[in-house]
Amino acid sequence: MAIVLGDNHYGKAETRVVRVVRDTDRHEIRDRNVSTALRGDFADAHETGDQAHVLPTDSQKNTVFAYAAEHGAGSCEEYAVAVADRLLEASPYATSAQVRVEEYAWDRIPVGDAESRQGHDHAFVRRGTETRTCVVTVEGRDPDRRLHVLSGLTDLTVLKSTGSEFKGFLTDRYTTLAETDDRILATSLTAWWRWPPGAVVSTSSTGGRDWDAAYDSVKAVLHETFATTYSRALQETLLLMGRAALEAQPDLAEIRFSAPNKHHFLVDLAPFGMDNPGEVFHADDRPYGLIEAQVRRDDAADDAAAWRDVPEW
Amino acid sequence: MAIVLGDNHYGKAETRVVRVVRDTDRHEIRDRNVSTALRGDFADAHETGDQAHVLPTDSQKNTVFAYAAEHGAGSCEEYAVAVADRLLEASPYATSAQVRVEEYAWDRIPVGDAESRQGHDHAFVRRGTETRTCVVTVEGRDPDRRLHVLSGLTDLTVLKSTGSEFKGFLTDRYTTLAETDDRILATSLTAWWRWPPGAVVSTSSTGGRDWDAAYDSVKAVLHETFATTYSRALQETLLLMGRAALEAQPDLAEIRFSAPNKHHFLVDLAPFGMDNPGEVFHADDRPYGLIEAQVRRDDAADDAAAWRDVPEW
Amino acid sequence: MAIVLGDNHYGKAETRVVRVVRDTDRHEIRDRNVSTALRGDFADAHETGDQAHVLPTDSQKNTVFAYAAEHGAGSCEEYAVAVADRLLEASPYATSAQVRVEEYAWDRIPVGDAESRQGHDHAFVRRGTETRTCVVTVEGRDPDRRLHVLSGLTDLTVLKSTGSEFKGFLTDRYTTLAETDDRILATSLTAWWRWPPGAVVSTSSTGGRDWDAAYDSVKAVLHETFATTYSRALQETLLLMGRAALEAQPDLAEIRFSAPNKHHFLVDLAPFGMDNPGEVFHADDRPYGLIEAQVRRDDAADDAAAWRDVPEW
Amino acid sequence: MAIVLGDNHYGKAETRVVRVVRDTDRHEIRDRNVSTALRGDFADAHETGDQAHVLPTDSQKNTVFAYAAEHGAGSCEEYAVAVADRLLEASPYATSAQVRVEEYAWDRIPVGDAESRQGHDHAFVRRGTETRTCVVTVEGRDPDRRLHVLSGLTDLTVLKSTGSEFKGFLTDRYTTLAETDDRILATSLTAWWRWPPGAVVSTSSTGGRDWDAAYDSVKAVLHETFATTYSRALQETLLLMGRAALEAQPDLAEIRFSAPNKHHFLVDLAPFGMDNPGEVFHADDRPYGLIEAQVRRDDAADDAAAWRDVPEW
Repeated sequence: MAIVLGDNHYGKAETRVVRVVRDTDRHEIRDRNVSTALRGDFADAHETGDQAHVLPTDSQKNTVFAYAAEHGAGSCEEYAVAVADRLLEASPYATSAQVRVEEYAWDRIPVGDAESRQGHDHAFVRRGTETRTCVVTVEGRDPDRRLHVLSGLTDLTVLKSTGSEFKGFLTDRYTTLAETDDRILATSLTAWWRWPPGAVVSTSSTGGRDWDAAYDSVKAVLHETFATTYSRALQETLLLMGRAALEAQPDLAEIRFSAPNKHHFLVDLAPFGMDNPGEVFHADDRPYGLIEAQVRRDDAADDAAAWRDVPEW
Repeated sequence: MAIVLGDNHYGKAETRVVRVVRDTDRHEIRDRNVSTALRGDFADAHETGDQAHVLPTDSQKNTVFAYAAEHGAGSCEEYAVAVADRLLEASPYATSAQVRVEEYAWDRIPVGDAESRQGHDHAFVRRGTETRTCVVTVEGRDPDRRLHVLSGLTDLTVLKSTGSEFKGFLTDRYTTLAETDDRILATSLTAWWRWPPGAVVSTSSTGGRDWDAAYDSVKAVLHETFATTYSRALQETLLLMGRAALEAQPDLAEIRFSAPNKHHFLVDLAPFGMDNPGEVFHADDRPYGLIEAQVRRDDAADDAAAWRDVPEW
Repeated sequence: MAIVLGDNHYGKAETRVVRVVRDTDRHEIRDRNVSTALRGDFADAHETGDQAHVLPTDSQKNTVFAYAAEHGAGSCEEYAVAVADRLLEASPYATSAQVRVEEYAWDRIPVGDAESRQGHDHAFVRRGTETRTCVVTVEGRDPDRRLHVLSGLTDLTVLKSTGSEFKGFLTDRYTTLAETDDRILATSLTAWWRWPPGAVVSTSSTGGRDWDAAYDSVKAVLHETFATTYSRALQETLLLMGRAALEAQPDLAEIRFSAPNKHHFLVDLAPFGMDNPGEVFHADDRPYGLIEAQVRRDDAADDAAAWRDVPEW
Repeated sequence: MAIVLGDNHYGKAETRVVRVVRDTDRHEIRDRNVSTALRGDFADAHETGDQAHVLPTDSQKNTVFAYAAEHGAGSCEEYAVAVADRLLEASPYATSAQVRVEEYAWDRIPVGDAESRQGHDHAFVRRGTETRTCVVTVEGRDPDRRLHVLSGLTDLTVLKSTGSEFKGFLTDRYTTLAETDDRILATSLTAWWRWPPGAVVSTSSTGGRDWDAAYDSVKAVLHETFATTYSRALQETLLLMGRAALEAQPDLAEIRFSAPNKHHFLVDLAPFGMDNPGEVFHADDRPYGLIEAQVRRDDAADDAAAWRDVPEW
């Protein structure tokens, strides 16, 4: 018996890089939080303190900044792939690189009177709705390089003020919950969807996927399915949302959800001689239900490498 | 010399009440975080432990919920006034009541195809931009009742990617900052604007102020002024925003700002042989500049009661 | 009528400076979050964008670091005074400077076997209990310089599992709370205590106050009074704590408390056929009671400058 | 090809239960945040909305409270096992139950004069250092029941003011970091250690493991190893800490670490004509290095079920 080093990885987390695209007077901004990680032969760093195999996390941060110049104007997926490939190029002892991006959307500030209202060229207001995410994992180098891409979002907070029930559930001696035909259903959704693994990220400019458009499409489908379907449970709603996303994007392999059930309790106003016909609710913080579910094509191969170290899964 | 009780107040903070307006199938929601506080003759509670003058904070919470039924469908200002008046009615030993509201906006989830796209009747997505706020303080009871109303917003995060400079500043032996003709200017704004004190809150339905419209108007003016004016310093921008708000709402007495200067540092890419013509920035967390300034009509009377215990001021 | 600039100030918030005292092999650390602010004649910066009166907040940050070298090894109060004086020296257009410090305590990591257990010379673990604070405001310069010092703490979280009641309170139609003879009382205390204003900060090394010892003394008195007194309400407990602090430190003018009543609700286990004799509680997040109270010597002069812009008051 | 439901689970997250042990006048408190989750045959809930297999998360919350009465006075591991077993008993369609606990330590408030100083019987101050954690997963029921136990801690923030270097690392064109012989090393550690799987949790009262003592022992070893070993990299320190923990607890199978490298940058005071011999540092927030590593006995079997859904791994 010996005590040994097991799996390990290291990197630089949460480099906050803002890329201004100012090719014309009408600027664009890409506001991102980027984390990098390397796996590989780093045993010496642990066992003897020898850092000869270790590209400093400070160099990884510098790479995130430097690559924002050339690769940061496009989608987060393309940018993440460029950074991951560079880290593998710079770090011969690494066998895989993972780059995670959180992206915060900004809208142009509206200016002008009602008739001529339009967005300003270089003034923005942070949108504040969901955060877009991606995780890119590159294993190996050409010709054996393999690319895994997850896209996703987090903190998409949605609510239905009716069209949701919860009844017919299993009960035990600790069950006190009443059935309900009409409740508020609310969640703050995290979702990850997985693209098929491959060797290249083609982009719309090279005849391939338009990653930004794909993101918008999946988000719109999640929105619309949540809004327009009746809910007998958050579980049912998640499966419907997952199906709709996979139907809308035929090359998606799977989608995974983490969905807190943000409870809105109908306040009992009877002690004050008042009815409460679904009007006054207490939005509680904790505890909350937590539903996590995967939806997948039954013929899609698994891809464990894509999900490694991904938060929530 | 004796040790004595000084100023004191108590209340219930952060009651999270959601009011669904379901008079028709097209629901509205008002999502609020409500805090109440009472000042008055509560010395016995401190000095002898006698609670005979103390309306429990639990009863204040119940009032917040109960009043949401009848008064919660309209503006936060009207609702806060109703709650404050009720607390003074219920608590004869109180001399003033303060009600603070934070309000979180929700948008209808868009549904339908591109041509028929519209918002859903009862499904919403949290907007996530700024939080609307108000602080209502009622002193006394009829016929000597006096009403103080602040409206405001917090976490309005705006950014200009150009049109901002910082130069010509005072220097000392600890000054290392370089002057700049072109930088990112970003802030996460808190603003409070004060309405003239009075005895009544009239509303648009009673021939008076439309509080929701006034909020939208001030916000639009803040947005537009930030976007369309050149900035020689965040200080200059704040004064311009304040002026514009007071000009747009002639009965406003003053507006106060708390504005962190959210630094975006141009990354030095020269060590990598690269230029950085205003494209790649590091968004730093701490430290940050903090500018706080008031803008007022020079003939407006002060109103200390309105500002009492208000965060940031 | 004109629209004019009112009160304003600016500075650098939250510079995170760690000072290692390594005069001997047994190191000490002072871990601080420092915010500075200046008031004075800064109208031009707002009105014309002329920055000639404005010492950049970046220079203020540099001062915080540079002064940590010479003045950062002692108490936060002495360090804050040194920084404030320097900012007034560097900024001739400023009329007052305020320096706020939050200080995080670290303990030496215990090493050695049970008999020889002692703290390590240069390895520390963050204590994590309350945060020590101070706010120093310097108005003017010699010979008219005036110094205002608040010391304090925040996030001191204390709990009594018995010895607390709440009954005999005022009721109204919205009161549903039951009286109780025995409850959990818990709060996360913020306290500020004010020293008499003056011209100098004398320190223990100059025959004057030992600021660190004074802090420890006040904290110990707050602890002990909370622990050993029966509570008929959080209000009563705060007054007792304030009295005890002022009695322990005869030159303190006043102390102010902000105390959330962190509710622990006895869980109703009766539906499951179980008693709950004060054993199982739900610790709720929101809403919470909030009690704020001042305790003062009746012959102490007011000192508005000391409290200006202080959070919670 | 079809779109199908994949892995899924559901439960109640973050029930905040406080258990007061008042068998004698000298109370104890156990302050916990408990999350439960069930896996099993819940496909109908997703596919048809039929909830007949679903024990409501509200009932899970009630179970957490009810079981705190009988099982909440001891270690978090024993309590979690009791809750997990009960959930499997109540939910015949579940195949496994996972219970996670975060536990917040409180210390007795010291009272009495210096000579007779001791902890109070029923007044406590929250310790605020690390949070103790455990994750218990029960698969199946007797006689095929299998138990997996992780213990751990999070937010253990430690710092060495010397005795740490970083040099000899790999460089590339984006490397600008200088080597250093003496730096601050600081981290906020998360650690999980895995006990061998089995069928029963024996406790010290039944001749088996004293879980509280084991926790204290592992924590002490982590503390002491961090303090007393020289660090050529955080990687080396983690392996040393892991070895020491496994050596101290011979039946531990493995330990896993997630360790942010909380950077403390030596401030350049040269522009002000000052040296900085390791005295003044800037504690930066983001980005940060992130090192994650596992240390294990080479003859220990894997146990994937123990780690399922565990945050950080």
